Amino acid sequence: MPYQIEFEPLGRKGACLSGKTLLECARALGVDLVNICGGEGSCGRCVIQILSGDVSALTQREIDQLSPTLLDKGFRLACLVSPLGECVVRVPPESLSTPQRTQTEGIEQFVEPDPLVHIYQLSLTPPSLDDLQADAERLIQGLLEQHGVEVNTIDFAVERQFSNFLREHNWLIQVAVRGTEIIHIQPAAKQKLLGLAVDLGTTKIAAYLVDLQTGETLCARGEMNPQIAYGEDIVTRMVYAHQDPTQARLLQELVVDALNELTRALCAEVEVDPTSIAEMTVVANTTMHHLFLGLPISQLMKAPYIPAAVSHLDIKARELGLQIAPGAYLHLLPNIAGYVGADHVAMILATGGHQPDGITLGLDIGTNTEIYLSNNGKLSCLSCASGPAFEGAHIKHGMRAAKGAIEHVRFEDDVLEFQTIGDAPPVGLCGSGILDALAQLLKSGIIDERGRMCDHPRVEEIDGIKEFVLVSDEKEAPDQPTLTFTQKDVRELQLAKGAIWIGIKTLLEMNNLRASNLDEIIIAGAFGSYIDIRSAIAIGMLPNLSLERFKQVGNAAGMGAKMALISKLQRNKAQLIANQAEYIELATAPNFARCFARSLDLGPIKSS
Amino acid sequence: MPYQIEFEPLGRKGACLSGKTLLECARALGVDLVNICGGEGSCGRCVIQILSGDVSALTQREIDQLSPTLLDKGFRLACLVSPLGECVVRVPPESLSTPQRTQTEGIEQFVEPDPLVHIYQLSLTPPSLDDLQADAERLIQGLLEQHGVEVNTIDFAVERQFSNFLREHNWLIQVAVRGTEIIHIQPAAKQKLLGLAVDLGTTKIAAYLVDLQTGETLCARGEMNPQIAYGEDIVTRMVYAHQDPTQARLLQELVVDALNELTRALCAEVEVDPTSIAEMTVVANTTMHHLFLGLPISQLMKAPYIPAAVSHLDIKARELGLQIAPGAYLHLLPNIAGYVGADHVAMILATGGHQPDGITLGLDIGTNTEIYLSNNGKLSCLSCASGPAFEGAHIKHGMRAAKGAIEHVRFEDDVLEFQTIGDAPPVGLCGSGILDALAQLLKSGIIDERGRMCDHPRVEEIDGIKEFVLVSDEKEAPDQPTLTFTQKDVRELQLAKGAIWIGIKTLLEMNNLRASNLDEIIIAGAFGSYIDIRSAIAIGMLPNLSLERFKQVGNAAGMGAKMALISKLQRNKAQLIANQAEYIELATAPNFARCFARSLDLGPIKSS
Repeated sequence: MPYQIEFEPLGRKGACLSGKTLLECARALGVDLVNICGGEGSCGRCVIQILSGDVSALTQREIDQLSPTLLDKGFRLACLVSPLGECVVRVPPESLSTPQRTQTEGIEQFVEPDPLVHIYQLSLTPPSLDDLQADAERLIQGLLEQHGVEVNTIDFAVERQFSNFLREHNWLIQVAVRGTEIIHIQPAAKQKLLGLAVDLGTTKIAAYLVDLQTGETLCARGEMNPQIAYGEDIVTRMVYAHQDPTQARLLQELVVDALNELTRALCAEVEVDPTSIAEMTVVANTTMHHLFLGLPISQLMKAPYIPAAVSHLDIKARELGLQIAPGAYLHLLPNIAGYVGADHVAMILATGGHQPDGITLGLDIGTNTEIYLSNNGKLSCLSCASGPAFEGAHIKHGMRAAKGAIEHVRFEDDVLEFQTIGDAPPVGLCGSGILDALAQLLKSGIIDERGRMCDHPRVEEIDGIKEFVLVSDEKEAPDQPTLTFTQKDVRELQLAKGAIWIGIKTLLEMNNLRASNLDEIIIAGAFGSYIDIRSAIAIGMLPNLSLERFKQVGNAAGMGAKMALISKLQRNKAQLIANQAEYIELATAPNFARCFARSLDLGPIKSS
Repeated sequence: MPYQIEFEPLGRKGACLSGKTLLECARALGVDLVNICGGEGSCGRCVIQILSGDVSALTQREIDQLSPTLLDKGFRLACLVSPLGECVVRVPPESLSTPQRTQTEGIEQFVEPDPLVHIYQLSLTPPSLDDLQADAERLIQGLLEQHGVEVNTIDFAVERQFSNFLREHNWLIQVAVRGTEIIHIQPAAKQKLLGLAVDLGTTKIAAYLVDLQTGETLCARGEMNPQIAYGEDIVTRMVYAHQDPTQARLLQELVVDALNELTRALCAEVEVDPTSIAEMTVVANTTMHHLFLGLPISQLMKAPYIPAAVSHLDIKARELGLQIAPGAYLHLLPNIAGYVGADHVAMILATGGHQPDGITLGLDIGTNTEIYLSNNGKLSCLSCASGPAFEGAHIKHGMRAAKGAIEHVRFEDDVLEFQTIGDAPPVGLCGSGILDALAQLLKSGIIDERGRMCDHPRVEEIDGIKEFVLVSDEKEAPDQPTLTFTQKDVRELQLAKGAIWIGIKTLLEMNNLRASNLDEIIIAGAFGSYIDIRSAIAIGMLPNLSLERFKQVGNAAGMGAKMALISKLQRNKAQLIANQAEYIELATAPNFARCFARSLDLGPIKSS
């Protein structure tokens, strides 16, 4: 029997089948709850509050994960509770997975347009009883005679259109040629030829609509990756896809639908039809790449983490259900390894990591942090398992960068100040806030070099674990929950920063370099764009160098996708980067075990 | 409200929605009624007999087309009658479109196998933490190292399979390579690599399952083209497809489903999986080719009858929904013109029309008769609108070659003898019988050179039209209908044979040849295989030459499809034939009008 459920403050209402959890019901109604463990009741993030109505009994897992105060107020975990009648449910902001920011901006590099697709105007003589040439051959001959362009194939989807098209447009047309293939046909009105570049991230999708001939970006949009409803992190999604081929297909379709939706929105913005898009590039990490293409992922899930394929791939976009020009190709930039994907190749391309001059370190910090080192053009790269702490997961009051998240913290002379996203009342800490908190507490001596939390009026001990109170409901914000930063959080962050530190150290040592040799340190990606570099230096995550050497570049992967979209040369460079970059498997790197213990120490890195 | 309808003697039962005609109901139940006009009530072929039950009132069209005797017995036209309750309906054999014979046999030419697809055995080293190469690149490198074969693409569908496949088969596999692409992957058991050659005819589909490496035909099957339910002739089907894109798609799907069914049946016969088929060729006339591929046909329907495309085409079979190896290609042989298709190219290829020595005439007689003349290798060809008379249409008691059809007639000393298919009681005349009847009556003087029927005890006049009684219900077959051959039938046949005569004459004149110069006359196709050449000579349809010069070759188009399947060289020859054959548009040929009147004369052609 279905029950009517209402999600507040969103005002989303709908029927939920009995036996379904509120998480499943929320998904069905398009309410995206944070859900890191994939609905298994272990991450404790899909917290909701039952405002009215009967629901299933409290479970031990909820008792373990929610404080008695919260339980008293009707807070539950959506994945463990099912409605037994009509319900009204409140979704706290920190449980909502829709963020405030999606990242499309990034460094712009000037690239001379050199697209793979070219357009030609044609005026053909209509056939007659004395001139019986077939339409396809007439088109091919026209291109040769009028433009000296030799083609040998007409895309099959185009072939299905053009006989009627030629007659409807009085034999005056514009054709798009890619290599030796006609891939598109339009009225001869010198229409723009468009391309779409996509950065398909685990969390966000950024898409850019580009004029292929001028290289100009006409508009850009970011959206959440809808796969998030099936797990925030990559491993959860891989497990979900691995369980059942129909689940893998579902993840694929979600992304395809989201891309089609993004495409329609972008095209509506500049009033063009999505079928004007004659070329598309996508960069993604290797897992997202495989899920998007429907490639198998089981071999990616266990050591030695082998991708099905790493080379660039050109396929017809229609083969994946992408609704652009029916003959258009989708170009996927090459991956490097199981945990260094095409998004990192695109970042290297966009940040000039393949240039022969200078020593550059580039990082994209996330659950997996990819790092490259360009030693006067000699590239090496690796991925380190920095964990989701900087995305707010496994942190007691962590959250993603959404409204009310504390994004910056300052603690000086025992005065605590913070800034929240949207200046909203604080509901948790996002990555940059977490990083600041650790750095500030370290500086003030409340946390020592080994990560131990010391005594302080703001430090309380709850169930034997020390917690630094950032926001207390009695004082700073009477209506808000108590927000703390705990000893356990410090341990998580030590592991995260330690992993990144080992990554950097490994790359430097393998190149016989010291941190001081680095000319430039490039930080890309959403988290990296918002952090206070001083905090990252202070905890020993990034090298202790002058701030001018650091460059926060935003969505460099998206920029790389755009460069490869408009330029054959850049596309070739991307493949060269993938071929030439030396991939280092950190697990087999010689200094890994030796470095591990030291990597956890907090405090600025001493150039050794 | 649906009514239960039973079709006898087939025993097919099912529900028919009220308002639907019995023709639509029969279609829905898989009872294929002859239906030349596409269900418009004008061809009078879908005759059925209502044995019991209420049906809609008699229409004027039925009164016009069915004799009072038939009407008395409850005979109706299925396309004009709807049930008003439960009904039992009898389908006379001549109204059933399922024939006795399907044509797969044809001349066998020895062709050295030279397939496009090759297989290689591979034993790969599994990846490890020290050897992180991705699966695709490992496969490509293995092929290069172990066989010196360089590939640059892996079919996308194969790429989706092989990571799991490699691991399941312990890295021992067999790959199929076409050009520079890996199109298939199998366990390393030195399995056969199969191909499928198809002659997609307007009426029949013939398919051959072939070992690509030896060239051996493992088995062959013929089926009716299921599009027949939507019109027996090409023009009706084009009109049907042109009315509505969903109808065009339906015609396409019918053929695809039939091919998948044929494929499964062929594979079951030799106990292989359809996914072992790694290459497929199809020959068809230009209309069938276009309908099969979903190409537009409106420009084919009116002068100057321009095909969308004539060149050979290689597409992934999966793009049409063909269920063979997911990465397999479908190769369509080239067409020559709107009314000379790839089936004729294949016939030229199989009958050696491109050979440099000898003067050969080749004909495939049907509603459109395609004729080629090879003048020591110089090819010219044309199509003539011979009409459907030889397929039994527009002939009062004509029918297709099905059980009970009179296939041979002899009339000597006023004694009439005939032979029926399956030695069944006579129900009509099929093409060879019609041809014999005309020749025999001409010889006996009952029909004169101008086609006039003279008086004779067997000639009766009904409604002012003379009819020669072949079978009378009182005499030869008391339970059978009267079968006649009418003055009107003679006129239809004069037009048919005249069209072919003009075609042959035009080709000869354009080559400055006389009929006596012909070394060989090749007759291909189902009708041509069963006719008595003497009759064809006697009425002046074929040149008056000694019988040794004639060769009846059966399904030469299917043989050509098979040759192109197993040999790259033959495929290239087919394209050369299409490029080099001079197509003559009969409507613009200079002697057409001059010849027309003379072409109708009956009697052996005098070599002029």
